Amino acid sequence: MSAAAAPAGRPPERLLLGSGPSPVPREVLDALAWPTIGHLDPAFAVIMDDLAELLRATFATANRATLPISGTGSAGMDALVGNFVEPGDRVVCGVHGLFGERMADQLARAGADVVRVEAEWGRAIDPARLIEAARGGLDAMVVVHGETSTGVAQPLDGLGQACREHDALFMIDCVTSLAGHPLALDDAGVDAAFSGTQKCLNVPPGLAPFTAGERALAKLRARSSPVRSWYFDLSLVLSYWQGDGGRAYHHTAPINLVYALREGLRLVAEEGLEARWARHRQAHEALRVALLGLGFERLAPEGEALWPLLAVRVPEDIDEAAVRRMLLLDHGIEVSGGLGPLAGRAWRIGVMGTGARRQPQRRLVSALAGALGVDPTEALAALDEAWGGVRASAQ
Amino acid sequence: MSAAAAPAGRPPERLLLGSGPSPVPREVLDALAWPTIGHLDPAFAVIMDDLAELLRATFATANRATLPISGTGSAGMDALVGNFVEPGDRVVCGVHGLFGERMADQLARAGADVVRVEAEWGRAIDPARLIEAARGGLDAMVVVHGETSTGVAQPLDGLGQACREHDALFMIDCVTSLAGHPLALDDAGVDAAFSGTQKCLNVPPGLAPFTAGERALAKLRARSSPVRSWYFDLSLVLSYWQGDGGRAYHHTAPINLVYALREGLRLVAEEGLEARWARHRQAHEALRVALLGLGFERLAPEGEALWPLLAVRVPEDIDEAAVRRMLLLDHGIEVSGGLGPLAGRAWRIGVMGTGARRQPQRRLVSALAGALGVDPTEALAALDEAWGGVRASAQ
Repeated sequence: MSAAAAPAGRPPERLLLGSGPSPVPREVLDALAWPTIGHLDPAFAVIMDDLAELLRATFATANRATLPISGTGSAGMDALVGNFVEPGDRVVCGVHGLFGERMADQLARAGADVVRVEAEWGRAIDPARLIEAARGGLDAMVVVHGETSTGVAQPLDGLGQACREHDALFMIDCVTSLAGHPLALDDAGVDAAFSGTQKCLNVPPGLAPFTAGERALAKLRARSSPVRSWYFDLSLVLSYWQGDGGRAYHHTAPINLVYALREGLRLVAEEGLEARWARHRQAHEALRVALLGLGFERLAPEGEALWPLLAVRVPEDIDEAAVRRMLLLDHGIEVSGGLGPLAGRAWRIGVMGTGARRQPQRRLVSALAGALGVDPTEALAALDEAWGGVRASAQ
Repeated sequence: MSAAAAPAGRPPERLLLGSGPSPVPREVLDALAWPTIGHLDPAFAVIMDDLAELLRATFATANRATLPISGTGSAGMDALVGNFVEPGDRVVCGVHGLFGERMADQLARAGADVVRVEAEWGRAIDPARLIEAARGGLDAMVVVHGETSTGVAQPLDGLGQACREHDALFMIDCVTSLAGHPLALDDAGVDAAFSGTQKCLNVPPGLAPFTAGERALAKLRARSSPVRSWYFDLSLVLSYWQGDGGRAYHHTAPINLVYALREGLRLVAEEGLEARWARHRQAHEALRVALLGLGFERLAPEGEALWPLLAVRVPEDIDEAAVRRMLLLDHGIEVSGGLGPLAGRAWRIGVMGTGARRQPQRRLVSALAGALGVDPTEALAALDEAWGGVRASAQ
């Protein structure tokens, strides 16, 4: 077993300031490597209950059906659509970026009659237009709260109420916004939502935090056709996660990822949701002004920006792929390129969880200025100023 | 952050000798906790390629489309059926335990015309009966190679050939058999298969090793309806895993689980597949005779047993739930109860990977004898005898 003692191919250390995965704190990696135990072990049940309670607090919901789906964020989308949309349902879908497009794609695969309400990439959708689209009658509305492809936060004002008036479900994708941008599911009248672990929760990818309220569960119970996926069938999943008087085996939960997610959620609870949102806002603003000084302008207009993801236009005279590669390979810093119509024209920079602090941002700004061959002093000063001025801060 | 330094709720150490998860070696847990990097990082691409190559060797296949699906073993089933079965397909499905039942369920959800070929729980299905069922014409046949609910290995003789004669796909569930029971996919004419990580690979749950050959991929390309699941759509998943000239982002891979799986597969390669199968056979036999001495008789008849899972009848005078609980809580040893018609009447004992060794089996036999209030000497002697007699062996 000598080769096993020195495993080949340990990955390099990276500062993850792209669109996700985000930096994973040592405590979370440690929890990930805790000893694996059985999915029906009473000791695991305690961890599951603890996780569910922490997840409810993070979503700001009282929904009992709150749990991680056993797949990455996109699995949450499949589970959401697979359980709460039936063939023939009329579903209003907001599309203002790649993740809205995906949602529309998945809805079509599920046999829904998809009513697209669009905005250009880089802008939010006026909620009044979504409400207007609902007037024709609908079974559900789905919007992407944090559009990871453009760094835009979608206002949810009035959408939950409009859906209730039509006896329809209101559902959201909050993969990138959860725990980094103000969001309180019950207050917003959200019936079901999914997220990811590798954004503002700072947990490795592999689970999709998920929640569903009574109106969504009633629709599930009243389905005329079975959920097409056995794996994502929420009524079966819940018999394991909630199992009154005994948890029924469905599939083997990703035990170690559950440990890690609980630990990530514990760190969120320790900081407090509102303090965390405020920190993300401050970090977003700090990085925005610093990058503006280097010629990178934010895509989203004031009032539409998503704190955890700063998408910026890359100056036209820069070979963006070459600079990103230099940041990654010479400085160990990952930032993400643009997607779709923004490929080659924009960068997406993560401001997520432990990445939303001054020190990693200083490292990025210094490295970027170096890669561009400019003096970093002014940009760093702007960053420090936005963080409150004192360089030696623990932020 | 002081609370973070001493996280609450670290799980207890368990000796996992149930139906899975199986014991995870330190090297694999260490790899799991390696620093998270980006899913598009060139350093991650190296790890993915390495994993795919190791996985091909483990499946004994040359299939290029060999990769882990981002979910537990059951997600592999969804992916298999979701990609390679279309509504209206006639599918012959072997059912001789819980996992065959699940497969039939998933096939029905996918709109297939399911032709069940059954055997009683605890027995294999005569391959001639499956071949006979194929005579009526079929689009696919699916069997469970290692039935985890009964500890039965399903012979595959002639099935691949029969499917080819009808231009149908031959697909298998090898969740519990992979790397623990003789299986060579290409030799057996298997067109597509899925497995799990938490059985004989000794990797925490969360990924489903998956492979598909050209005949399966041709069927996927010729589908008349889109794959219903966006997450499991193999053509999209492959554009990330294979991506000639650049990997296209699909979903964020479960980075750390990929590290762990590669490490687990590396340990399999280090031992060698045939040596590993032989060790599982020896371990199965050793535990079988030891438990027989304590009154626990194997369910599967000679010639139908699945090496990695020993299912035994529990003597009628034993309160099986109480004894299992005693093993778990007093001795830290997990064994699994029976499922379905075998609930309360059988135990399922894992003989998987690092669990398929003398030392953990001695611990189980001693603890079990103690829980039953009998002298363990004879059972331990039988165990040692089957392992070759020398107690101090490194096995």
